[in-house]
Amino acid sequence: MADTATLILVRHGESEWNALNLFTGWVDVDLTEKGRAEAARAGEMIKELDRLPDVLYTSLLRRAITTANIALDKADRHWIPVHRDWRLNERHYGALQGLDKAETKAKYGDEQFMAWRRSYDTPPPPIEPGSEFSQDTDPRYADIPGGAPLTECLKDVVERFVPYFTDVIVPDLRAGKTVMIAAHGNSLRALVKYLDGMSDDDVVGLNIPTGIPLRYDLDGDLKPTVVGGTYLDPEAAAAGAAAVAAQGAK
Amino acid sequence: MADTATLILVRHGESEWNALNLFTGWVDVDLTEKGRAEAARAGEMIKELDRLPDVLYTSLLRRAITTANIALDKADRHWIPVHRDWRLNERHYGALQGLDKAETKAKYGDEQFMAWRRSYDTPPPPIEPGSEFSQDTDPRYADIPGGAPLTECLKDVVERFVPYFTDVIVPDLRAGKTVMIAAHGNSLRALVKYLDGMSDDDVVGLNIPTGIPLRYDLDGDLKPTVVGGTYLDPEAAAAGAAAVAAQGAK
Repeated sequence: MADTATLILVRHGESEWNALNLFTGWVDVDLTEKGRAEAARAGEMIKELDRLPDVLYTSLLRRAITTANIALDKADRHWIPVHRDWRLNERHYGALQGLDKAETKAKYGDEQFMAWRRSYDTPPPPIEPGSEFSQDTDPRYADIPGGAPLTECLKDVVERFVPYFTDVIVPDLRAGKTVMIAAHGNSLRALVKYLDGMSDDDVVGLNIPTGIPLRYDLDGDLKPTVVGGTYLDPEAAAAGAAAVAAQGAK
Repeated sequence: MADTATLILVRHGESEWNALNLFTGWVDVDLTEKGRAEAARAGEMIKELDRLPDVLYTSLLRRAITTANIALDKADRHWIPVHRDWRLNERHYGALQGLDKAETKAKYGDEQFMAWRRSYDTPPPPIEPGSEFSQDTDPRYADIPGGAPLTECLKDVVERFVPYFTDVIVPDLRAGKTVMIAAHGNSLRALVKYLDGMSDDDVVGLNIPTGIPLRYDLDGDLKPTVVGGTYLDPEAAAAGAAAVAAQGAK
């Protein structure tokens, strides 16, 4: 590969359920108007890069797909190849999907709430198959061995996404392509943990803001040349990360 | 393959240059608001089908890509795999790209105008490389052997698109997948000519309206079970085809 390869990570803009402060997970909600504006702004920043995306990877969820569609259109890169895979999906939030974050915190207490939201290996209770916010009969997940998950912890996300990254995405990087990934808070946390070699404990404190492209230049060993990468708008990213950290507090 | 396979063809909705009555070809113009509404309506019709798209093929042009993005989002199929290829592009209109259709007709006369627009094997004059509406330095076409074309007749479109259809798209049909193709007036005319076994003379009179899905069910020999396919809104399709035929008359 070239001396360095470039990854551009984008967490989708605000979704309807971000705005309502509900646990979303694999529920396929749309972006809000604010989220669409975030995606357009991300595209304007990407358009100015010295390395433009050559290939796009997304999850199977509308909020990431639409974010990428809007951003790449703005960046005049709407025509690049696209790969979509469930392994880039948000963490499945189990029985919490569809619940209000603040109500959940009040009902179960701070400790349990933070364990579900931020511990590395504590999944929420599994969702009831066939219930309103379950994905067990969704045709897009028919090919997952064993079916769509009923709940996941961050460790589960690492274990499904990192092998996809190393097996499918890394060959594109080694071929010199600039890769854009449009995904979710927790799938991007899983990837950043891997890229930066973060411990299971340290990743708990990592918050990725919505809609602000995060650039990683990787050396020949695929190690980041700057640990933590570089946000294209660092000031907005710091404010956004603080807002993510505060979720559930309202 | 199954008894029948299904193809869903969608010509992009109205573009900015359709609205201005300019020759567009490979110039990468956007949809108008009317074009976006056409795409949304196409998606609503596709959503009601008994066979939903399993895979999407598009050109590398924004107006087809955006039409597909909008339609598949409406149809809740935004998550299906996507393949984009220049072989699905509109016919390259050569030196006519960017010219007003009515002015061109007045300047060159009816006969020459119709020969460029509708004859099977008369390409317009080649576009000047490096000129405003040429694609010879566009990075998306860097992999085309010999570079992006400088002009094309419909025969050229048949010769680039039909082999792609038979080599790349047909295997998906044979695997039982329902295939959606979002493309352009002339690339879809090339495909319909092939599917229906139309003569070089007969295809001259074929007009495909914008934004109305055209369904082809194909038998085990990939022959259409209904010659000409079935528009999902036949009444609107007839009106739309008449409007296409009248272009350049204003």
